[in-house]
Amino acid sequence: MTTHSVQTTLLNCLFDYQDMEAYKDRVKQIHFELENSKDMTGWINYPLMDHKALFNEIEDLKSEICINADVFVVIGIGGSFLGARAVQEALSPYFGVLKEGIEVIYVGHHMSGAYLEQLIHYLDDKEIYINVISKSGSTMETALAFRVLRQYMEKRYGENAVNRIIVTTDPERGILKNIAEKEGYKQFAIPSNIGGRYSVLTPVGLLPLAVSGIDIRSFMDGAKNAALELKAVDLMRNHAYQYAVIRNILYNEGYSVEMLASFEPSLKKFHEWWMQLFGESEGKERKGLFPTCVTFSTDLHAIGQFIQEGSPILFETLLHFHEIDGDYDVPYDSRNEDGLNYLAGRSFNEINATSKQGTALAHAEGGVPVIQLEMQKLDAYHLGYLIYFFMKACAMSAKLLEVNPFDQPGVEAYKKKMLKLLKNEPLK
Amino acid sequence: MTTHSVQTTLLNCLFDYQDMEAYKDRVKQIHFELENSKDMTGWINYPLMDHKALFNEIEDLKSEICINADVFVVIGIGGSFLGARAVQEALSPYFGVLKEGIEVIYVGHHMSGAYLEQLIHYLDDKEIYINVISKSGSTMETALAFRVLRQYMEKRYGENAVNRIIVTTDPERGILKNIAEKEGYKQFAIPSNIGGRYSVLTPVGLLPLAVSGIDIRSFMDGAKNAALELKAVDLMRNHAYQYAVIRNILYNEGYSVEMLASFEPSLKKFHEWWMQLFGESEGKERKGLFPTCVTFSTDLHAIGQFIQEGSPILFETLLHFHEIDGDYDVPYDSRNEDGLNYLAGRSFNEINATSKQGTALAHAEGGVPVIQLEMQKLDAYHLGYLIYFFMKACAMSAKLLEVNPFDQPGVEAYKKKMLKLLKNEPLK
Repeated sequence: MTTHSVQTTLLNCLFDYQDMEAYKDRVKQIHFELENSKDMTGWINYPLMDHKALFNEIEDLKSEICINADVFVVIGIGGSFLGARAVQEALSPYFGVLKEGIEVIYVGHHMSGAYLEQLIHYLDDKEIYINVISKSGSTMETALAFRVLRQYMEKRYGENAVNRIIVTTDPERGILKNIAEKEGYKQFAIPSNIGGRYSVLTPVGLLPLAVSGIDIRSFMDGAKNAALELKAVDLMRNHAYQYAVIRNILYNEGYSVEMLASFEPSLKKFHEWWMQLFGESEGKERKGLFPTCVTFSTDLHAIGQFIQEGSPILFETLLHFHEIDGDYDVPYDSRNEDGLNYLAGRSFNEINATSKQGTALAHAEGGVPVIQLEMQKLDAYHLGYLIYFFMKACAMSAKLLEVNPFDQPGVEAYKKKMLKLLKNEPLK
Repeated sequence: MTTHSVQTTLLNCLFDYQDMEAYKDRVKQIHFELENSKDMTGWINYPLMDHKALFNEIEDLKSEICINADVFVVIGIGGSFLGARAVQEALSPYFGVLKEGIEVIYVGHHMSGAYLEQLIHYLDDKEIYINVISKSGSTMETALAFRVLRQYMEKRYGENAVNRIIVTTDPERGILKNIAEKEGYKQFAIPSNIGGRYSVLTPVGLLPLAVSGIDIRSFMDGAKNAALELKAVDLMRNHAYQYAVIRNILYNEGYSVEMLASFEPSLKKFHEWWMQLFGESEGKERKGLFPTCVTFSTDLHAIGQFIQEGSPILFETLLHFHEIDGDYDVPYDSRNEDGLNYLAGRSFNEINATSKQGTALAHAEGGVPVIQLEMQKLDAYHLGYLIYFFMKACAMSAKLLEVNPFDQPGVEAYKKKMLKLLKNEPLK
């Protein structure tokens, strides 16, 4: 295990490593199943492939965009935007944008008319590029937003609009592919054997991340190292598989909710990416842990009471990065009315890390199993690693649950009802 | 029932109104218990009291602040900021701030050193006022942020700092009360018989909301009407109590998670206020529904699969506002490559409302009980109403569960561990 790895430790686990041993053979079998599968498992080796040409192409385009635009509008839903938004928010400043990039706005993932009206108004005095991301191009939310923004671009830029519209879609078929071919839009391919929620390490995530100013080579280096290290077939040497097995054991013990928790507010959207990955991969056939998330210490004063003393239905996965860029020291105050001078000179990040320790201990004592995932640094490299770690763990976890990690049959249900209502067709 | 009321309807409920009838007497008994209690029930009649002087004072101060500042920094955690942030975000534009107000930033609810460093840098070229909100003044996150920002104000404004620091705290005692008295800061009182998560309708919420540009008289009018209407002791005439009873029935049937869902992204923070209210009121003695939330249709492409087909542990509460300011029409496109011309001329809000209907039907068919709460309009008046509705429902619901709706003993656990770690004291 190198220092790049995710370190998994456990508190208050109701099982010992012998329980885990019992999973060894099953894990091995699933490992080879996944490695040898041709069914939507393209993401497994994608970070190991040679992407030099792709990186150059994205970086060239990124330079062009940052010179010619103030805002980059990404149109996509679900796996088409959650990953990029997650990494962007985790690594961008709390106020403003990275100096290496420009503002990136994500739309087409809901149907608020108020939002769209205000967005168009906001864009009116800015130069823009748009990037529509959809495998098929037929999802209503994304298709409607693209219809609006494409016409808007044509009105704003006339014949030049074609140079400011980028399409990320299936390399061979689909509505969006056809439009891109006909109009001559610049295209990026979503590999056909990689599903939406496993696609952030492809152009789906890479172009928006590059434009937002993130170092995509470092990001993909992290993913590549994870892809190498997490090829270990031995459960005892593979932390992703260990995480999957722990989840499975806790699920079988009756826990129904997994709560991902971080202590840095910039990770809030990263949690949402994680929720889709696990919720959509496992929530089928009436099975699966319900994935939810919290940002501490904010939420310790909201849902903390429930975690500590409420219904014993959940376990917690604490995500911790040892190093975070930027910090602030507690100042000395001669008045000391708050009695906090004993903390003067210590840094907020240090105190925050202590609150993480305190929280883990308090929750474990309260009877909540606590999984701790520790990474060295909150940066592009380690987020690339962590994303791959979670994808590998998720595929294993879903297979242990005996469901297909790569489909999402239930997502169609609301769409069908909505379409019938919109077309005034009978509901049954 | 007036048109101001929350309309409660149910889909796929596994009980009929006879089940509800059985609660009538218990609800009546709890109603009178709450009405006659002196224990932290000050919020029940607070909106009915005469607040003219308070409103005038807040509005005068608001005018002063908006003339002299660009940013209003609110320092508080839990109930000291979740309510104001919820209403502010729900009613503010997606880009920028209301023209009647200025930017409001909420800090002191976490301990990220990176955030604090960047905030201070962000404030450097702006004029500011700060408002620290805490009953005791001893919560670490808030106390540390106040220590930093108070010194910052003194450095920036010298003797004038005293005129730009506002304290909202206990009217009689506590660290913060003492500091405010000594320094001569402007003070607002948190009524001592109103707890944090029930306090948004007091100066705790009203001052930040006024400064952000929201009409607090209209907001409090809504709350007042709710306080009048929801005094109905008869379960069959009180929608708040009906909501409480439905939750209790579903909980007793084995559901362990309640998911609050909206279709307007600006309600995201409102959900977080709701989560604290219910999670902290009910999550004790190993009981309580786990409160969680989603924004659709975004999250239909994230956690929608789980809701539709995953573990049958949850029911859903759909929050819907019939009117929302701002909308956009789907444009006609002669190319019609996306096949969406049948929607041309219809508005996004209308389609969004249809997706709500479709979602409710699909989830109900999938076996998920769906509670629908419908309000006329997304505005200050109706949010005031809705907040009171939820508080009244929550107190009833916790009492039905036989737990104290007004304490939060479990929140102390992590603080104690953290303090021992920070002071190097033995953990046991």
